[in-house]
Parts: sequence; structure tokens; C-alpha cells
Amino acid sequence: MSATTEPRARRRRRPRPGGGGGARQVDYRTLRNPFPPVPAFSDDAAGQMHATALRVLEELGMKILLPEARALFRTAGARVDEASEMVWIGRDIVEAALATAPKSFTLRAGAKARDIVLELGRLAIQPGAGAPHATDLKRGRRPGRLEDFRELLMLTQHFDALHMLPPLVEPQDIPPHERHYAMTEAELTLSDKVPFVFSRGAGQVADCFEMIAGARGLGAEAFSKEPWCYTIVNTNSPRQIDIPMAMGLIDFARAGQMTIVTPFCLMGAMAPATVAGALTLSHAEALAAITLAQIAGPGAPVCYGAFASNVDMKSGAPAFGTPEQVQANLGAGQLARLVGLPWRSAAGCAANINDAQAAHETQMSAWGAILGGATVLLHGAGWIEGGLTVSYEKLITDMEMIQTFAELCTPPAEDAGAIAFEALQEVPPGGHFFGASHTMERYQAAFYEPLVADWSNFGTWSERGGLTASERATGIWEGILKGFTPPDALGDRRGWLESFIAKRRAEGGAAPES
Amino acid sequence: MSATTEPRARRRRRPRPGGGGGARQVDYRTLRNPFPPVPAFSDDAAGQMHATALRVLEELGMKILLPEARALFRTAGARVDEASEMVWIGRDIVEAALATAPKSFTLRAGAKARDIVLELGRLAIQPGAGAPHATDLKRGRRPGRLEDFRELLMLTQHFDALHMLPPLVEPQDIPPHERHYAMTEAELTLSDKVPFVFSRGAGQVADCFEMIAGARGLGAEAFSKEPWCYTIVNTNSPRQIDIPMAMGLIDFARAGQMTIVTPFCLMGAMAPATVAGALTLSHAEALAAITLAQIAGPGAPVCYGAFASNVDMKSGAPAFGTPEQVQANLGAGQLARLVGLPWRSAAGCAANINDAQAAHETQMSAWGAILGGATVLLHGAGWIEGGLTVSYEKLITDMEMIQTFAELCTPPAEDAGAIAFEALQEVPPGGHFFGASHTMERYQAAFYEPLVADWSNFGTWSERGGLTASERATGIWEGILKGFTPPDALGDRRGWLESFIAKRRAEGGAAPES
Repeated sequence: MSATTEPRARRRRRPRPGGGGGARQVDYRTLRNPFPPVPAFSDDAAGQMHATALRVLEELGMKILLPEARALFRTAGARVDEASEMVWIGRDIVEAALATAPKSFTLRAGAKARDIVLELGRLAIQPGAGAPHATDLKRGRRPGRLEDFRELLMLTQHFDALHMLPPLVEPQDIPPHERHYAMTEAELTLSDKVPFVFSRGAGQVADCFEMIAGARGLGAEAFSKEPWCYTIVNTNSPRQIDIPMAMGLIDFARAGQMTIVTPFCLMGAMAPATVAGALTLSHAEALAAITLAQIAGPGAPVCYGAFASNVDMKSGAPAFGTPEQVQANLGAGQLARLVGLPWRSAAGCAANINDAQAAHETQMSAWGAILGGATVLLHGAGWIEGGLTVSYEKLITDMEMIQTFAELCTPPAEDAGAIAFEALQEVPPGGHFFGASHTMERYQAAFYEPLVADWSNFGTWSERGGLTASERATGIWEGILKGFTPPDALGDRRGWLESFIAKRRAEGGAAPES
Repeated sequence: MSATTEPRARRRRRPRPGGGGGARQVDYRTLRNPFPPVPAFSDDAAGQMHATALRVLEELGMKILLPEARALFRTAGARVDEASEMVWIGRDIVEAALATAPKSFTLRAGAKARDIVLELGRLAIQPGAGAPHATDLKRGRRPGRLEDFRELLMLTQHFDALHMLPPLVEPQDIPPHERHYAMTEAELTLSDKVPFVFSRGAGQVADCFEMIAGARGLGAEAFSKEPWCYTIVNTNSPRQIDIPMAMGLIDFARAGQMTIVTPFCLMGAMAPATVAGALTLSHAEALAAITLAQIAGPGAPVCYGAFASNVDMKSGAPAFGTPEQVQANLGAGQLARLVGLPWRSAAGCAANINDAQAAHETQMSAWGAILGGATVLLHGAGWIEGGLTVSYEKLITDMEMIQTFAELCTPPAEDAGAIAFEALQEVPPGGHFFGASHTMERYQAAFYEPLVADWSNFGTWSERGGLTASERATGIWEGILKGFTPPDALGDRRGWLESFIAKRRAEGGAAPES
């Protein structure tokens, strides 16, 4: 089914595919955001925030810790002070960078059907990422291990409504100088979706590029013509880019690979205690990083990013799913549309367990991202404890929400058959539609079938053990892992990958930069 | 603070009140929906659905069980068949009714500050309603008692973001012929918000009107000039209006009181298995009921309503928070805007416990209602088991969502102080904003303070007992009930109310119609 890849106007006129008598068929692989973007600010104010961000870069400057990055900024005309590591970036430099950054590009996956187009209006979803811990109801909360990373990759591969692989948990049982081999190998062997690479220094990045290019059967030049992987660069808010992040921006841009630039601006902590102020800072930092990427590799694919929420002003604890995060997600979308780039937003939750708080916070922030017109929704499933843990059960219960969003990307049928005058004629007053021909033609495919929701009544649910959604989710992820068959994205290049990794390990691996 | 009562354009230019150094002040009493309505269907299709609904009323007709209602339809020019109790309503009759139905009116409460304006663009929220059972973690699940109804009214009174009183649970320990006295007395003595009256026959309705008029110090004529209470009329889908419902429509309209007309159309059960078909049926039934009200009392305040979701096609169980319900909520808003009336939508959940499923389903459907532009959001907090139970704990955890929606009704500040160039100048690269003057000026009032969310880290949360949101909610509702002080909305009319009820009880009360 390709309905979701068509322009909205055409799709609207068409009955839902699978609306006939057959079994329900859905395609969550290619999504377009069905909602018109909702602004948080007036257009004037969004323009002021953009202008203020340019002023911040020009007058206040950024601290750029990597000498090579400062040199690149200098060649582009920026004022640089080597002693303080400060760089002042004129608006003409930023504008030139925005002119070369592509507004639409295709992330290439291990299978054609997994390729992802990133541009405003599209929607790609990722599960929770970057957590030091994993947790599930069977084995408890523990520091992330390679086994956890691999299992969570399998769950990510399983769900079509998850489109890109993130670094779900940190495999801390693998030494840092070899961790990137294990992670990339897992991504390439367990999934055919777009892989992630950490920006932890030139050595690791070069290794990962070589593995991914080899796995896709590409030489270095063919690899650099399209983005086959991506990294995420977080600035050190306020107004600082550290060494590995700057290296990542440069290396990914030069290799034509995609960078998601995400300042993480917690209002009241690393950013002003206002939505507008935090977004202005975030915007300035995103523009600085995008500019560095475009100076290093003009035309390199970059994704604008924003991750702004607030802290609890009593404790300093980060909060998610708050009204302020929703407004920040909406406002960040306005700034992304001003620069015309695909953009990354996020869901989030600060809850410590997969309960009603976790679900409410996650969905509230996800709606902010969706209504903000985000192209990439990060942390859409499983993220808990403000990102310190990925929960297997929460990944499953959140997927109900994610699949509901994916369903909403296909508008309801609106043809005469759907409006159903004949069915209304067939059923008498006070009757029912269970056996109506209109229902019989549609019942197998009419509605979304839930993943984990239990719609049985209280008596039946109690007889079945009275399990919470989290408790039911355990059996679901166990079943997915048990039945998991990896895709054959590598073919006969698997042996090459294994020997490359063995060789590099023997050579001592590559230590991360810091 | 009155910012939320102003037109959107003006509010947008204004910094958030309380944005200065003082403690946080919020006003959740008067809300305007901050989101532009999102359509589910093309305008053409919505027009087709409206046209088809008119055709249903004209060609297929409605079964109207109350002879007086059929007589009213006949006087208005409808074709009536007494033998089959069928009424065929011409579109001219419907259009005349829509012309007299007011597009904006004020529901009068027990205190001026609790009055509610209903018109498209406004937002009034109610907790879960009509449940036979109540549940909480202290006392378990039980048939609703007067004590439960009274406690849930106190919780409803406590939260400013709940604007109207619904019949939260059915007090089954009070005999049916006296139940309306106990419920109305509780509403009038424990709250100053707009009370609800069941449409269970002319006798009970007359009693309630007399109690409410007396409690507000009004004679019958003054009472009938403005709506001081409301009822909810559910049609018996498909295409039938029963005796007590028709009586309620007539009695409320003649007394100038407000009726919310809500067909409950479960796709695949009482309605076609398509969103468009279910809404077309729902629309036809709502128009029929609104027409009856306007024939009985031209100009009577009515609220358009729709409550459409789907069933599980395998079991027939009702489902909520589904993609289909979200689309139905969006589509119902389109039909409500076609007729220009304030309209009632709802959240819902089929979960049997206050878990992640409950939260996800409730919030998903609530967003459908909010983005559909609903004027009244029913079942916004506490509704569980598809409406069979109101959960005290879920009422509290849902209130976090409701208060977040209420917060979102005030846009973020966007003045130069909020954009915060000076603050960005003050804090050096890599520094923090905790002690910045910009933060110090705002920290007390900057952010929403959570009701039940726990933002502490895993260690602290575990030390405090590792409680779920539901478990924490128990202490919150207990605290609210313990500290509850009823408003003095009755003054010296309390004695009158007590003697009226005593007299009517002595006279034998009023049995419900069926």
C-alpha cells in the first residue's frame, strides 16, 4: 500500500486501502504527518527569535573547543579568538550555510523499503535512545549490556512504525575502544533500518563508515554520495561545542552522511527559564552546528533539532511532558520551518516506572512534536527516567501510541460507501449493525487491532489475572524476541564484516575522543 | 488574571501574567481552545455527511417513543406514523430548528466566577460521568454509593480546570424515587459549579428545577430566562429516541435549561463500521433531538454532541482512545462547525485499571476532542472500564493531563524579556542559568507545578517507596477530601432546600420514567 506516500489532497479522495472484505493490511513504513503545524508563537515573535539567535552568534559568539573547527569557521569569514576558543559567526555565514543545506534527502537503509525521506511534512519515528540503563519486569534494572542493546534493536526492527535505529542503551560490558564495532555489527546484522553512529572521535567514526559502506557493498566514493547512516550531535548548552561533537559534524559532513543537531536546552538550567529564551538559545546553537557542517561539506544532509524542556525550579530535576515542553516543541517547529530544514523533536518522560505518569508525559510531549510538525520523533517508545533507562515494557506500551499516530497518517474513508446511507437504510431503529452487509464487508479490516491494550470487561480481565498493561507487555516483547528472524541485509558481505572487525580489534580498536 | 478570556490575537502579544517575580498564579476557570480545529474529512465529504444525515431524517425517519414528542414533530410539519412510532423530519424543519438554537450562551453557576460560556472556541471540562461503580486503592471497586458521589463531587469542585458537575457515579444505595434529591442536594451544597440533572421523567426533572431555582433564589420565571443546569440526552442509536430522553428534551427546552444531545454511536455495533458512517448516523440523531428541543422551546440552549468510537470486531467490546475515535472526534467537530453550535466530545478508555493503557487511551481520545475543537470535554478525568467505573486515582492522574491542557490555553510569553538576549549575554559558554538574574526574576512562577508527577531520580524515588502514580494519587485525593471546605453558594437558602426535600420525600418522591 502506498497511500501514505501520496500528497494529502489526493489521499483524501481515496477510500482506505484494505477497506474491503480482506484482512487488514497496514503500511507504517512511510508516514506523512497528517496534522497542520500548530504554532506556539506569533510569526513576528518567531522572526524575532531567529533574528536574536543570529545576533547571539554574531555578538556573543560560540565556544568551539576543536581547533580544526575554529579554523574552518575562520576560513568562512568568522572572527575567531584562539585564546578563549570563541568564534563569532556573522549572519552572512549562517545564511550561506542554510542555502547549501538540503531541504529534502533520502536516508538509505539496508533495504529499499526501509529508505527514509527526510523533509518537512514527513514523519520518521525512533524509540528511546542513549540510556545508560535497561529495565524489564523479568530481569530488573541494570546497566546496559550488549545483550540489551541487541534485544532492543530486534524490537525496533520488529515494528514498522519505528523507522531509524538509535543507540537505545549503552552496552557497558564492551570496552569503549571496541564498543562501536559491537554496536554497528548488531545494527547491520539484526536490522535493515538506517543505522546510527556515535560521534566519539574520528577513529571510531572512520571505522563505522567503513563497516557500513562495506555492509552495503559500497566503496568510499559511492558511500559518500548518499547518507547511509546518521549521528546525533548535542551542543554543550549554553553556546559551546565540544571536541568529539565538532569532529562528528566535520567527519559526517565530509563523508556526506547525516547529522541531527540537537541542543538540549533545559529551561532554567542550561537555558533561560522561558520557552522563547530557551528556543532562541537552542536555535543559535543549532545554526552554529549546521553552519560548521556546511562549511566542512557544503550540501551535507543535516537535520535541525531541538530538545527543550524545563526543570523543576525547586530541585533542578529535568521534567518532560510539561506544558512548557509542548510549547517548546511547537515553537521549535516554527523555527525549523523558518530555515526550511527537516527537524527532530522528541517525546520524553521523567517517570521512574511505566505507569500513568510515564504514559501521560510521553504522549503529551509526543503530541507537541507531532503538532509541531517534527520530521523525526526521537524517544517515541521506551524512554523513561528522563532518558537514564530504556524500559522493554514501556517500549511496548508506547508502541500502541506510536501505531495510533501511524494509523492517523491515513485519513478515514469518505466515499459514499463509507458514509453508508444504504447501511443506515438496512438497519431498523433500535437495531444493530453487527450483521449488516456493510459491516460484513468491512469487519476484518475496519479497525486498528491493539498491540497491548486489553478491551475485555472487568470480570474477564480479572479472571485472566488482572494484569496491568506493563505486565502484559512482558509477554509481548518476549514473544517478539523468541520469534525474531533477522533480515538478510548483508548477504555474502557478512563474512567481510566479521573479518574487518576482527582485524580492527587485533589492531587495538579505536578509543573514544573526549 | 483574565488573559484567557481575551481573543487569541490580543493574548498572543502579551507576556504571561505572573511571569515576574511573584508566586505562580493561574486561572483555569475560563478556557479558550488554543488549537486551530483539525479536520478528519475534506470539506466536501463533511458536507456530504450533513446532506446524508438530512436525507436519513427525511427518508428513513426516526422512531420517537413519546407520543407528545411525535405530536410536537407533527405540529412542526413532520410526517408521523403513530402505529410504527416513526417520524420523518423534513430538512426545512431541521433548518428552522438550527436557526433558533443559540450559538452562544452562558451557563449560570452558583457563583459568578463559575459561570461558563458555551460557544465554539471555548473549552469546558468535566470528569468521568454516569458510572455504576466507583473504585479506589483504599476501598476497592464497589457499586456507587451516595458517599462516593459526594466525594467525587468534592474532587470536582476542588479543581478549577473542571468546569461543570456531571453525574460521576450512580448512588445505588439511595432508592430511585429519591435519588435525584440526594444528588441535587449534594451538587448544590458541595459545589458552586453548574449542576447536572438526569432526564428520568417529568416528575424528577420538575423537582430538580425547583431545587436549583430555589437554591439560586429564583422564581420559575427568572429561572427559565437563563440555563442554570443541564442534562445529557443519549439517543438509542440507531434512529430512536426513548420516552425519558424525549421528555427531558421537551422539559429542559420549555424551562430554558440546557441539553447536551449525545448519540453514542459505536462503529460496528449501533452504527456503521466506518467513521464517516457512524458520524452521519450520529449527526442525524443529534439534529433530530435538537429539532425536538427547538420545537418545544424555540431558542432553548442546546449543545451538539457526538460520542463515536469503535468496537473490537472479534468480541464486540467497546474500545476507546483508538485511531477511529480520534478521527471521529475530529470529524464530529467539522459537523458541529457546519451547524455552528457548541459541541460536546469526550475522552475515554477501556482499561480496567489506572495503568499505561488507561493513560494512553484517555489522552489520545482527549487530544481528538481538543483538536476537534470541542466546547465540552466529557469524561476528561477518572473514567475507566469504558465508563463502568470512576477511579479516584485515575481522576487525579488524569487531572495532570487536564491541567496541562489548561496551561496550554495560555500561550508562552514572547516579549523581548522572554526571548532573553540579556540573559544569554549574562551566562558564559558552558555555564548555567540557575542563578542568572533572568531566572531569579521568574523562577517562582516560570513553570507548571505538577499535581502527581514525581520528577525525582530513580534513587530518591525508590527510597521514598517506589510508588506508582496511582499509589501517589491516593494520598492526594485523601488530602483534598480532608481539607475540603464547601463553598457557600446557598447562603440562607439551605434551610429551604432541606425542607423542600423533606416535604417531597414525605409525599413519596418521584419515580423515574422508563
